[in-house]
Amino acid sequence: MTLAVRGFRAAAVKSGIRGKDRLDLGLIVSERPAAAAGVFTTNTVKAAPVLLGASRLKGGRAQAILVNSGIANACTGEEGMRNARLCGAMLADNLGIEEELVQLSSTGVIGMQLDVECFRGAIPRLAAGLRDDSAGLEAVGRAIMTTDTVPKSAVRSFELDGVEVRITGLAKGAGMIMPDMATMLCFILTDAAVDPDLLRRMLRRGVEASFNRITIDGDTSTNDTVLLLANGSSGAAPLAEGSPAQMLFEERLRSLCLDLARQVVRDGEGASKLVTIRVEGAVDEAQARQAARTIANSSLVKTAFFGEDANWGRIIAALGRSGATFDQNAVSIAFDGVVMVKDGVGQGAEVEARATAVLKQPEFTVTVDLRAGSAATNYLTCDFSIDYVKINADYRT
Amino acid sequence: MTLAVRGFRAAAVKSGIRGKDRLDLGLIVSERPAAAAGVFTTNTVKAAPVLLGASRLKGGRAQAILVNSGIANACTGEEGMRNARLCGAMLADNLGIEEELVQLSSTGVIGMQLDVECFRGAIPRLAAGLRDDSAGLEAVGRAIMTTDTVPKSAVRSFELDGVEVRITGLAKGAGMIMPDMATMLCFILTDAAVDPDLLRRMLRRGVEASFNRITIDGDTSTNDTVLLLANGSSGAAPLAEGSPAQMLFEERLRSLCLDLARQVVRDGEGASKLVTIRVEGAVDEAQARQAARTIANSSLVKTAFFGEDANWGRIIAALGRSGATFDQNAVSIAFDGVVMVKDGVGQGAEVEARATAVLKQPEFTVTVDLRAGSAATNYLTCDFSIDYVKINADYRT
Repeated sequence: MTLAVRGFRAAAVKSGIRGKDRLDLGLIVSERPAAAAGVFTTNTVKAAPVLLGASRLKGGRAQAILVNSGIANACTGEEGMRNARLCGAMLADNLGIEEELVQLSSTGVIGMQLDVECFRGAIPRLAAGLRDDSAGLEAVGRAIMTTDTVPKSAVRSFELDGVEVRITGLAKGAGMIMPDMATMLCFILTDAAVDPDLLRRMLRRGVEASFNRITIDGDTSTNDTVLLLANGSSGAAPLAEGSPAQMLFEERLRSLCLDLARQVVRDGEGASKLVTIRVEGAVDEAQARQAARTIANSSLVKTAFFGEDANWGRIIAALGRSGATFDQNAVSIAFDGVVMVKDGVGQGAEVEARATAVLKQPEFTVTVDLRAGSAATNYLTCDFSIDYVKINADYRT
Repeated sequence: MTLAVRGFRAAAVKSGIRGKDRLDLGLIVSERPAAAAGVFTTNTVKAAPVLLGASRLKGGRAQAILVNSGIANACTGEEGMRNARLCGAMLADNLGIEEELVQLSSTGVIGMQLDVECFRGAIPRLAAGLRDDSAGLEAVGRAIMTTDTVPKSAVRSFELDGVEVRITGLAKGAGMIMPDMATMLCFILTDAAVDPDLLRRMLRRGVEASFNRITIDGDTSTNDTVLLLANGSSGAAPLAEGSPAQMLFEERLRSLCLDLARQVVRDGEGASKLVTIRVEGAVDEAQARQAARTIANSSLVKTAFFGEDANWGRIIAALGRSGATFDQNAVSIAFDGVVMVKDGVGQGAEVEARATAVLKQPEFTVTVDLRAGSAATNYLTCDFSIDYVKINADYRT
């Protein structure tokens, strides 16, 4: 599978931010200014690149994304903001593009300042190394990894006006993941031609159905960013709102976001299981989501998944503190097809044995039916393992 | 320290609910019907003994508390409610007291039915073994332990009308602890004479300042119960509302609740550190509490405590998703006396080294100043260790 998208070039280098031997700085450049949309963290504490990027995106255009790992450039005050601007200016100067068209992105430790000299030394090498094939984007995917164990990417395409339109996404994130509006770092590129307003609306809907429905540890990062650049290099006509082409594009975009979101949860810190929490029969969508999210974040539920223990008591206890409306004598809980709780009461040892077999799989779905209404939603989570604690007790040391 | 309170007798036995060799059934009896107040779980899912107990307490009186560990009698439907009533009736019959004056309490696995035969066999032995010294209450304290590693008790006293008035509390709880109005199991006995309405108001205020300000894992039990029985056996005059005696009693009650709440968190599953999260400078009390609670429940913050890593980035990230109002460029964070973040920016390596030394202690305070108002609150939490995961992955197996 090639990640290449017409009109985009990419490269990554070892800039020294994370020592000599790690890719830590990536660059993506469009051959022309692209329509651009972004969704950023809802955390009150926002990193400098998030503040700068959101402000620059008001124009609806971007041409380059410069992203580093190792240092988040969050809680760095005025100096952090100056550093972000300076790195962006150095890049714009090198590429000969407008400074306002540079998006910056950072991920890593909070509270440390960027070393601008690492950027100064690396930017010429980055620009010189830009390539239009898959390898450039693959290198960027590796450069943004922190506690991730694998790079995350996905591609979708469809035919429009006789040409293939492509959408490629890169993502990173394995901890501090419980987005609320946006999540982690994710860069999506397409050669479709799209009006920036339409692009923004499609991105918001796509994110809402994917990254906003996952959790690893209930924490929301200061740096969460999803950027979508559409440069029109496919040559296909601009997407018209309400047209079949737009709906096709949006379906592909949503599918790509969901694919990346699943990859993020599957690679959750220390995680060994990918679990879908499905809540049905809720009074409304907000309650369905709140119920699913409370279960998906419960440490007791997640450690039971790790222990392969079909401990539905913890699921119903989490449900009961979620604030969702339901009658405890009506609720049912199933593990894949095995209905373990009916009308609020467990169905016995034989059923439990079958449910335990479900939990031994690397991937399964817990379905909770509240029997209180007709709204439903899915939430993705992972188990909570000994390795999670080890990773996070030792992260900085 | 003796736990004995005039006019109360207690005993515990091995009933067989948890096998042959574990104390699992406790009984506390007042020599006369006592004024009684209770605070119960706010979880939508409530165990049978909670539903029954809350209904019986409307009369403001109780004479006996029958409590078992091993099985929570939660999510057990009509059968669970019948079993609770039956066990209570057997006890009332044996003691020759009114059935409505029996409070039942259960803690353990959700979804299993009580074995009524265990109760039938044990109640005569329990009643025969009742004793008025400290040993009877100590045995009850041990019988209610589940994942607790130590029994929890506290005593307060003061002089009134020339006699010593005593307040004794027993508590259990080490997991599924993030009370919201009430928590775990806690039984408080006093020989003061108190009107039931006044007793209820004092208990609510005491619980609000203690058990409602702790968390171990963010989960709220289906069985949380705090019961307070006042039998007047001291012979001191009834407490008059607004009198110095009432204020003295309430101060002692609050101190006792806080003492027990600390014991619960200190014995948190797998916990090695007791941490006070203090939020100052909040717009109002609700925001102070929400900010403190979000930090206190963050898995990333708690694993950093376990790793003795003064990772303030995780604290500020949790703060930023809490919903509390603040300016990220004004906030400060201190570990005991060491101010590590000032105006939203870290204070460097030397300060960090001193903060790390603070984290190596078994007990410390994290103080966050939001600089947005004048409200403040404390929240108690513990670290999140490898043992927490081990305990909860293996709990039922």
